[in-house]
Amino acid sequence: MIQIAILGFGVVGSGAAEVLTENKALIAAHCGEELNIKYILDLREFPDHPLGDRVIHDVNLILNDPEVRVVLEMMGGSHPAYDFTKAALLAGKSVVTSNKEVVSNFGVELLKVAKEKGVSYLFEASVGGGIPIIRPLQTDLSSNEILAISGILNGTTNYILTKMKNEGAAFSDVLKEAQRLGYAEADPTADVEGIDAARKISILAALAFGKLQDPKTISTVGISGITKDYTAVAERFGSVVKLIGHTEKVEGKVLSFVSPCLVPDSNPIAHVDGVFNGILVDANMLGRSFFYGAGAGKLPTASAVVADLIQIAKSLQKPPKCPTWETASEKDLAATDAFVCRRVYAVEGCHKCAEKASAAFGSERIEFFDGGFFAILVPSMSGKAAAERFAKTGLAAKFVLPVLD
Amino acid sequence: MIQIAILGFGVVGSGAAEVLTENKALIAAHCGEELNIKYILDLREFPDHPLGDRVIHDVNLILNDPEVRVVLEMMGGSHPAYDFTKAALLAGKSVVTSNKEVVSNFGVELLKVAKEKGVSYLFEASVGGGIPIIRPLQTDLSSNEILAISGILNGTTNYILTKMKNEGAAFSDVLKEAQRLGYAEADPTADVEGIDAARKISILAALAFGKLQDPKTISTVGISGITKDYTAVAERFGSVVKLIGHTEKVEGKVLSFVSPCLVPDSNPIAHVDGVFNGILVDANMLGRSFFYGAGAGKLPTASAVVADLIQIAKSLQKPPKCPTWETASEKDLAATDAFVCRRVYAVEGCHKCAEKASAAFGSERIEFFDGGFFAILVPSMSGKAAAERFAKTGLAAKFVLPVLD
Repeated sequence: MIQIAILGFGVVGSGAAEVLTENKALIAAHCGEELNIKYILDLREFPDHPLGDRVIHDVNLILNDPEVRVVLEMMGGSHPAYDFTKAALLAGKSVVTSNKEVVSNFGVELLKVAKEKGVSYLFEASVGGGIPIIRPLQTDLSSNEILAISGILNGTTNYILTKMKNEGAAFSDVLKEAQRLGYAEADPTADVEGIDAARKISILAALAFGKLQDPKTISTVGISGITKDYTAVAERFGSVVKLIGHTEKVEGKVLSFVSPCLVPDSNPIAHVDGVFNGILVDANMLGRSFFYGAGAGKLPTASAVVADLIQIAKSLQKPPKCPTWETASEKDLAATDAFVCRRVYAVEGCHKCAEKASAAFGSERIEFFDGGFFAILVPSMSGKAAAERFAKTGLAAKFVLPVLD
Repeated sequence: MIQIAILGFGVVGSGAAEVLTENKALIAAHCGEELNIKYILDLREFPDHPLGDRVIHDVNLILNDPEVRVVLEMMGGSHPAYDFTKAALLAGKSVVTSNKEVVSNFGVELLKVAKEKGVSYLFEASVGGGIPIIRPLQTDLSSNEILAISGILNGTTNYILTKMKNEGAAFSDVLKEAQRLGYAEADPTADVEGIDAARKISILAALAFGKLQDPKTISTVGISGITKDYTAVAERFGSVVKLIGHTEKVEGKVLSFVSPCLVPDSNPIAHVDGVFNGILVDANMLGRSFFYGAGAGKLPTASAVVADLIQIAKSLQKPPKCPTWETASEKDLAATDAFVCRRVYAVEGCHKCAEKASAAFGSERIEFFDGGFFAILVPSMSGKAAAERFAKTGLAAKFVLPVLD
């Protein structure tokens, strides 16, 4: 019997207990012995829950109990989640987490501590909810140099964008509905402004390139400024507007950003609708592979937490090796405007302005819209080069969207 | 330095050598030491290849060399691939393969031998080419009971079906073109008649349910009978025709088949075009997840072979545990016509016949086509129940396609 502890009995924490209960037999078969939830740490009591008698309020009971071999951290937020994680690792316990805030902010240190103590720190559930992506990147794709990763990493914003597209609804109306349905939080900032996606792309970039960038320094644009004009432009260009987290290596430096993008119908990301997530990986031998599924939600996320737990429990004497990350410094990072892609510039003005823009970019694909604006498809070049050419026209851009080919 | 041997220096075998050469440094970093191709077994000589001096013709040199720790079998076909694999495992060497024919026919025995000898037999490349699917099923999805797996498992047939749809071309014309382009073999039977897909679904079913079914006993329909009428029907029902391998558990029994299906636009499989593969997994906690990428090809397939190799080389003293399979017997298997789904019956006849069909199925969705036939969308029920109801109408079905929702 392997003893484990759960930190945080919220949505994901109680989901993990449910997965462990529902699939008890098959999980025990994988591990070679049964798993037992010995403690559940939470501020609250859960008198009516079947596991209510496991609830404790003092983390030291867990840290000081040598029987507890694995700790599942599903508290959310940086503190005390980070502090408890570090203490558990230092106490020689492996830790599994769904907490992207902690991984993206403290991953370098926590992975180092885990390594020093000969235990694991696993975080499959921190990106893409239940979708297998962290472990495939470390195993199935280990024979490849990763060139780029792009994805829909936030279900809330994808739900909103999908509704806006399908129903022609306004951002604020759909947000309210999403809040009513529980798809968006009362304070939706972290989702809507791309902060959650920035944390996730920083984790994926670290897995791909070994350097963890502070997510607060990642160029991040959310979806609160998206209007029907964006959707109209996207449609005319055979695309959809999606909030994309992207990372790639440019001349040896890491370039990561979060931004609404136009995604052409030919890209599998274009077909990821509703609360689902989808992640496209470009690797030097495999080419493009794509991972799709439930990017959030109680049981899908808990399913990934428990999968990590099984990997540890299967091999307690020699838990899975974790990656070694370094903190990304200024010199490791490329400027966001070095990103080379096609772009669509939406510009107020009439045919004469359009001709000016067309001359500047040498582009022939221009579409005109109600409301007196046009959109021009700019050939692939860096954001800097595009901005310089556009500046010379003297025109004013309504908005600019990268095209994710 | 870890010594390895390659069996078969064809497309995938030479691809594996290329992956090992191109990504040498990063692969060594993963393994903790360098890998060296000591032997390449092939009937031919390769005097102009940089590794031409490793080529040998006697497998015993490999089997009797204790330095060789891992053997990569990429010969194709059952014999001597199976015999050499078994001999290598018995000699205490781990084996990695891309050979779905061997895995689907001899997997039970070879996994048993590997277990007894304390080595690994890994086969990520045998299904979906380079797409991570075998390892995710065993690790990331290990916290789940697998309910069903459906997928496009053969790139050649998907290329043909995509061309037929996009260009309105006939099967035989597209096949000829695919052969000219090297997407289809001179003898295309194994691809076109679904035999290749049957081998792959038998492997996926064994991973999901622990029972390996002889692929020759899997109900298998290929695409050589697909005409423009099929494409026309699909389009009218908002679907595409795809060759699907499917497995699921029905009342404790395994039900697997390969068949052309109608795949509605809402299913991510519908958007898998050309030579790509896409596999949809339905699991009891995670729900649906989807894996997409290059299902064949030299470097993608080799990328998966080398990824397996890395997993073994990382941990030579304790190579990855392999699953235990049993041979599926009659009592483990459900009849194919127990498969419950919606279906489209295409029937020669006019409005009067259509009314008869509609009355039999209680269905209101009927479409009429040029050439004097109609298609009726039959509500979800078993194939057996649908066939019984249809028989009572006295009508003759032109074709029947399951709908993969």
